[in-house]
Amino acid sequence: MLLRPPSAADRFRALLDDEWVIDAPLERLLYGRDGSIAEGEAGLVVLPETRQEVSACVRLAAELGMAVVPRGSGTGLAGGAVPLEGALVLALSRMTRIVEIDEDVPCAWVEPGVLNLDLSEAVRHLGLHYAPDPSSQAACSIGGNVSTNAGGPHCLKYGVTSEHVLGLEVVLAAGEVLALGGPAPDAPGYDLRGLVVGSEGTVGVVTEICVRLTPNPPAVYTALCDFASVRAAGEFVSAVIAEGVVPAAMEMMDEVMIAAVEQFVGAGLPLDAAAVVLVEADGSPADVARQAAVVQRVGRAHGARMIRVAADEEERALLWKARKSAFGAVARVAPNYYLHDCVVPRTRLVEVLEEIGRIAERHDLVIMNVFHAGDGNLHPLIAFDRRNADQVARVAAAGRDIIEACVAVGGVLSGEHGIGLEKRDYMPLTFNEDDLRAQACARDALDPAGRFNPHKVLPGAARCGEAVLEAGHLPEGTWL
Amino acid sequence: MLLRPPSAADRFRALLDDEWVIDAPLERLLYGRDGSIAEGEAGLVVLPETRQEVSACVRLAAELGMAVVPRGSGTGLAGGAVPLEGALVLALSRMTRIVEIDEDVPCAWVEPGVLNLDLSEAVRHLGLHYAPDPSSQAACSIGGNVSTNAGGPHCLKYGVTSEHVLGLEVVLAAGEVLALGGPAPDAPGYDLRGLVVGSEGTVGVVTEICVRLTPNPPAVYTALCDFASVRAAGEFVSAVIAEGVVPAAMEMMDEVMIAAVEQFVGAGLPLDAAAVVLVEADGSPADVARQAAVVQRVGRAHGARMIRVAADEEERALLWKARKSAFGAVARVAPNYYLHDCVVPRTRLVEVLEEIGRIAERHDLVIMNVFHAGDGNLHPLIAFDRRNADQVARVAAAGRDIIEACVAVGGVLSGEHGIGLEKRDYMPLTFNEDDLRAQACARDALDPAGRFNPHKVLPGAARCGEAVLEAGHLPEGTWL
Repeated sequence: MLLRPPSAADRFRALLDDEWVIDAPLERLLYGRDGSIAEGEAGLVVLPETRQEVSACVRLAAELGMAVVPRGSGTGLAGGAVPLEGALVLALSRMTRIVEIDEDVPCAWVEPGVLNLDLSEAVRHLGLHYAPDPSSQAACSIGGNVSTNAGGPHCLKYGVTSEHVLGLEVVLAAGEVLALGGPAPDAPGYDLRGLVVGSEGTVGVVTEICVRLTPNPPAVYTALCDFASVRAAGEFVSAVIAEGVVPAAMEMMDEVMIAAVEQFVGAGLPLDAAAVVLVEADGSPADVARQAAVVQRVGRAHGARMIRVAADEEERALLWKARKSAFGAVARVAPNYYLHDCVVPRTRLVEVLEEIGRIAERHDLVIMNVFHAGDGNLHPLIAFDRRNADQVARVAAAGRDIIEACVAVGGVLSGEHGIGLEKRDYMPLTFNEDDLRAQACARDALDPAGRFNPHKVLPGAARCGEAVLEAGHLPEGTWL
Repeated sequence: MLLRPPSAADRFRALLDDEWVIDAPLERLLYGRDGSIAEGEAGLVVLPETRQEVSACVRLAAELGMAVVPRGSGTGLAGGAVPLEGALVLALSRMTRIVEIDEDVPCAWVEPGVLNLDLSEAVRHLGLHYAPDPSSQAACSIGGNVSTNAGGPHCLKYGVTSEHVLGLEVVLAAGEVLALGGPAPDAPGYDLRGLVVGSEGTVGVVTEICVRLTPNPPAVYTALCDFASVRAAGEFVSAVIAEGVVPAAMEMMDEVMIAAVEQFVGAGLPLDAAAVVLVEADGSPADVARQAAVVQRVGRAHGARMIRVAADEEERALLWKARKSAFGAVARVAPNYYLHDCVVPRTRLVEVLEEIGRIAERHDLVIMNVFHAGDGNLHPLIAFDRRNADQVARVAAAGRDIIEACVAVGGVLSGEHGIGLEKRDYMPLTFNEDDLRAQACARDALDPAGRFNPHKVLPGAARCGEAVLEAGHLPEGTWL
């Protein structure tokens, strides 16, 4: 169902070359999806190339009364980029310029469509890289990373996206171009970057980003530790950190996930392990040697059956390929998956994993775990088949149970994937009415007419001044 | 002039014990100042002890139509805590509990009145400390640090306050208690912490803060490097960082400041140096040894006349005492000082310092420099005597020249002291109307009636929807 007037595409064709205004039904359907299981349909898709074009498209959308959904690569896992009710999709995949690199800070100004891994490749000759490294880093864009405040394995040591965004340029609903922050350590005035980073396209369109670049570490140690129980693996993770070591990454996979990944990648993972932990340490050679010694000693003390140390770059790349292919590997197990992203205190990891095991049993489902163990960011993945209605109902119920189990131990809904459509109605589990009202009012301060990506992030699509906990309208068929 | 009704004090005495409601004229005058040269007068001063009391006081102030100015220790250097037009001062100096320490994250929940250094002392036995270390750290409060997004010498390596604030509890104008963030790496929803950290009490009252704690480094190297020219000192700073070393701190003092400090502290500073740079490196012993070697080598290459390495904790403490006493030492030179806080790109440091020297000459003033050289955060300090009207006019003119010189090379108004009253009308130098409007609207989203600390931060006390660049009302006699 299209809410746009018949001439909308023509109006946008006056702003962009014809090929960058798409209204063919099939493509509108394709742009109606992202990496989640939510489904929508784009009213129209435009692909601007400059901030001026973005601004002009946003102004025209306002004039036509169309909602605007900014979109990066569409790898998002919570439905944040799914357009509803015939919204305009503003795809930023043509804005791929690295505008400026400042080696002195060091930082780079980039357009939102630059792919995460492409940025690191582009600064490799300077001995630098962009630290946040989602598993989808070969496909996901920096703009999408900003939108979801994305994480990645190395965020254990280096912090999530918000810690790497120094400045932003944002186009707001009236087409005005806002500059927020920059390379200086503490920009004066109100810091609105936090309102934009992680806002999933609901306050404006990010058209340029100043990201911190990180010096490549002189030495790296990567080891795969193999345990006979999830409990031993979890306790190993806590014990390493309790020794005062903060590894660059500490990633865990359980037995079911190991089997799926090994079949897919063939990295020589131990198929009889109950869990493996991939540990990486980086820094100066002396510092890495010290950390490696701690990993070895603590690993043995916690019953690691084998500690496989990557002998060279090739083996390191293979171990990481295994980790980062996990979600892809699941396609061999079942046609669909529903993924959660809770964060729990690291000390409660083991009990929550055990509870997730009981939830899987109770709902007769396959739940696989692959996650950032170092910072307690779980990714329980429920494999299922959408065509099986009974299974779908069990998936939804299990999803709610998982979230409640995480919140019960002091955890939060999402660590790095965002709230989008999928998790928005769970927000009241961790926020009260005052908290949600403040968030709604802050969003409305930048987007008073609710023009950008409606229905996302806040429950009931709450607006400032409304009763935020009331269940709100969600177009039918968009979700499970 | 008091705008409060005569019974206001009595109304507050129904909420707090008598002694915590102060309306004696002398004390109202004392609470009318902070560490800046701005002057105001408190209508009434209250000292609540709990969030419930804060909430009740805020509600009552709303009922009585009084503006509310939250206040920490009053060490602020930009007039942020100065009450105007008989506002209610809400002094938080009784809220000094360290509520909880979580060694696992590690982090601590503290009340806003906890002094910066007291927190580090309280966690010393755990091998931890609170990293941001303003020179006033023995007197300033964590709440005040949050309010100004305070920095300090060690923020070069460890980042300013906003990077250490994991969560916040804030009382808003209707008395509601808001929870923002927490120890999890990336809280879901809109991140409003940035709207509060650095907001100088203009959006609400912070009643509890979850701060990151930092492990004490196993090894520390501290050296005072002595240069015959400011240019050589400045180039030394850039060259060390260009070697890939990020020292914990790199602090610079010029000749005039060295003389003032040496007279005050007697730390054996070289009185014939044009500039000294205090360098600190920390980390593992091997890492520190490597950094120290770089400092020695680069220092010699840039003509350091002497590199004095602290032999023990006592000498290290003495060198830091010299640095941190700088503002106090100025009292011997002149009765008043007006301090700026610009940040310039590190590569432009030397030219800006030379320009500041010319500004001092042009206006016939003494300007001393002591600053965070590593991150380009200047603190040019103009010593003067308030009783000399002609001098005061020259101070104001020189202040404007300094700020314009910083902005001209791509710098910003303030690095860590905040905007407060003193710098608010300079905001349009770095922000355009759209930027300022967005800031005004975001602030109003949390404080729609403009109840908290009016006249601060934004030029012309701009409100959402108003023309923000219009010069606004500022009560007479509050500023220079």
